[in-house]
Amino acid sequence: MPIVVQKYGGSSLADAASIKRVARRITEAKKAGNDVCVAVSAMGDSTDELLDLANQVTPQPPPRELDMLLTAGERISMALVAMAIADLGYTVRSFTGSQAGVITDSSHGRARIIDVTPGRVTDALEKGHIVIVAGFQGVSQDTKEITTLGRGGTDTTAVALAAALNAEVCEIYTDVDGVFTADPRIVPAAKKIHRISNEEMLELAASGSKVLHLRSVEYARRFNIPIHVRSSFSAKEGTIVTDKPAEGDTVEAPIIAGVAHDRSEAKITVVGVPDHPGKAAEIFQTCADAEINIDMIVQNVSATETGLTDISFTCPKTDGQTGVQALRKVQASVGFASIQYDDQIGKLSLVGAGMRSHPGVSATFFRALANTGVNIEMISTSEIRISVVTRADVLDDAVRAVHTAFGLDSTEGEAVVYGGSGR
Amino acid sequence: MPIVVQKYGGSSLADAASIKRVARRITEAKKAGNDVCVAVSAMGDSTDELLDLANQVTPQPPPRELDMLLTAGERISMALVAMAIADLGYTVRSFTGSQAGVITDSSHGRARIIDVTPGRVTDALEKGHIVIVAGFQGVSQDTKEITTLGRGGTDTTAVALAAALNAEVCEIYTDVDGVFTADPRIVPAAKKIHRISNEEMLELAASGSKVLHLRSVEYARRFNIPIHVRSSFSAKEGTIVTDKPAEGDTVEAPIIAGVAHDRSEAKITVVGVPDHPGKAAEIFQTCADAEINIDMIVQNVSATETGLTDISFTCPKTDGQTGVQALRKVQASVGFASIQYDDQIGKLSLVGAGMRSHPGVSATFFRALANTGVNIEMISTSEIRISVVTRADVLDDAVRAVHTAFGLDSTEGEAVVYGGSGR
Repeated sequence: MPIVVQKYGGSSLADAASIKRVARRITEAKKAGNDVCVAVSAMGDSTDELLDLANQVTPQPPPRELDMLLTAGERISMALVAMAIADLGYTVRSFTGSQAGVITDSSHGRARIIDVTPGRVTDALEKGHIVIVAGFQGVSQDTKEITTLGRGGTDTTAVALAAALNAEVCEIYTDVDGVFTADPRIVPAAKKIHRISNEEMLELAASGSKVLHLRSVEYARRFNIPIHVRSSFSAKEGTIVTDKPAEGDTVEAPIIAGVAHDRSEAKITVVGVPDHPGKAAEIFQTCADAEINIDMIVQNVSATETGLTDISFTCPKTDGQTGVQALRKVQASVGFASIQYDDQIGKLSLVGAGMRSHPGVSATFFRALANTGVNIEMISTSEIRISVVTRADVLDDAVRAVHTAFGLDSTEGEAVVYGGSGR
Repeated sequence: MPIVVQKYGGSSLADAASIKRVARRITEAKKAGNDVCVAVSAMGDSTDELLDLANQVTPQPPPRELDMLLTAGERISMALVAMAIADLGYTVRSFTGSQAGVITDSSHGRARIIDVTPGRVTDALEKGHIVIVAGFQGVSQDTKEITTLGRGGTDTTAVALAAALNAEVCEIYTDVDGVFTADPRIVPAAKKIHRISNEEMLELAASGSKVLHLRSVEYARRFNIPIHVRSSFSAKEGTIVTDKPAEGDTVEAPIIAGVAHDRSEAKITVVGVPDHPGKAAEIFQTCADAEINIDMIVQNVSATETGLTDISFTCPKTDGQTGVQALRKVQASVGFASIQYDDQIGKLSLVGAGMRSHPGVSATFFRALANTGVNIEMISTSEIRISVVTRADVLDDAVRAVHTAFGLDSTEGEAVVYGGSGR
């Protein structure tokens, strides 16, 4: 029997009524002739409520105990989903991450999956039971401690289970209809993407698209698991993330998959850095030691008369003050002049595998921004992505302008193939 | 290093502030030179809130999934208590029932402890950590399923851990100062009992005293673990439950330990039962098949002219309607006339090991009830207990009258040795 893995997030499990709706959805997949294994997140805001309780008790909870606390959230939702399924007359078994064989390293709060040994899940599926697994959690290989995978980890749990069970598809149910060419709250004309490659989805997820968790896409690519992102509130098809070409796919795929934006980063500029070999290394080693996640890096050309240069980089706002403090401590030894911190920035990214073979994409991109009067502060590119940093307050305008310039605005519902020239 | 096991109930863990208070209390025991292992219940009313969620999803949750759900409650409280202890600068490890080696049978919702294999707890204690264990829960021996021990099960967890760790004492922290000679809400003159035997404590717990869970007292008696019941809100000594004589105990112990009452039972009377051998057995087999917990049983003398008798018994009100329905189904085959159901009853029990050797106790007891105008509907006795069923609305008066008659009312704080005669 084909195996389908489904994932339901907290917003699909906000209360008893939503849980019953999700249960009906799960039993439909079973009724359609599949073995069904489901990964669930904690209900609604319950993870935040648990974090709030922890913060009331101590400003610095030990990571081991924080994981113990937070894993209660999925335990509650998985048991309730299982009850709702039983109420519909199906047999069901819920398993914690540990029971389902989700083996991780021992980095509490951001553990990585090392292996999945789903013996109990397989047994239960073979007996005809629907299986519910607590997302976001696992057990460490060496110490047998309960771990969590970090925010959004349930996507990764679902994909990892799909890989271990050799599932046909991993369906990620969420509160939107799929992956869009841009955030529909900013670009009302944004269209649902019907099919997208893993590579493009990775770039979108890394550039601020919140629909899928980055690590789950990496995992799906490695194990070649098709992901179907769709709404738990409708029966509509969503977005298929896969590298397999669609059947009967004769038209060339669109060049541009979509426009992502990100408001969660800050920019740190280290001013007046001596332009000697090794200075950049000292700066970024300092950031690495402070566990700052660096995103974009730009170094200006050195002014020859002074022998000094400026180095700018972006990092999550939540890491910003840590980064500034760590750098201040090495100011004398590195010998730079000052630090500027700026958290009023926005990042816009254009993603599309077609960029590789279609010149002219960057020209169209920068022209669209220029016509809207958007000033560009940093630029970074990959093979299939161009990202720019702008002022935060012009970000929405910039996203809309780029979306329109690449013909992504909805007309009859399918993305237009872009035919620009002269990159 | 001596090992102390402590237990904190939900009312001592109602919010972040109470959890911090409990943490301070725990670290004091550590500071005093003990290894400390603590069993905790779920916070405040959180078990009821989880039950309510389950009932919103289905009227009949599968017991396995209900246990999965409810065990989230202690997981949350144990992690928070551990965090609060870490915040005070101590190292700490929390363990689920399963991790702590609480092995049970597989009766979900009312599992019994088969064994405790506390390897991880012992390791952590030897490393100098304070250990927090989730109460009320375990893992089944055969199926490795998560189980719960039933309401009040955290008392049993604590005593079982104390036995397995060979602890000096099991301290049960609660929201009252100890075990009293009667419920102080009904008898303001009730006194705290300083020391009580296991046997007496068992009878009190079985007769409606809610301070200690019956099964935990049975467990403590079997493994000879002294229990210290005390308030988590004060530093006062509470009640020691032990069969060891107190040091320097020259005065004879009081005859009467206390007066318990119970409003949770109902009375079922089977009217007009043919007075043939085997009829009572049929009735009680019917109740056993319906899983009704029978408490007191009274059969009246048969009226010779009719050859019929009445059989009355008490059971928990929650089992009452099930019992009535089960009996109605066998009415024809057993051949009784009718069933009377009465849930307006109260039970009063007088408990004291001294009853055995002191005649006159029952005379004093019934005289006290008669003088208060209390009508007695059923009587049952054990070696060290007399229980009567009365109307519910006279129960409080009856408790006060008996308490006074046996000289239990507080004068200077110590129970008076009763010197009656002529039982």
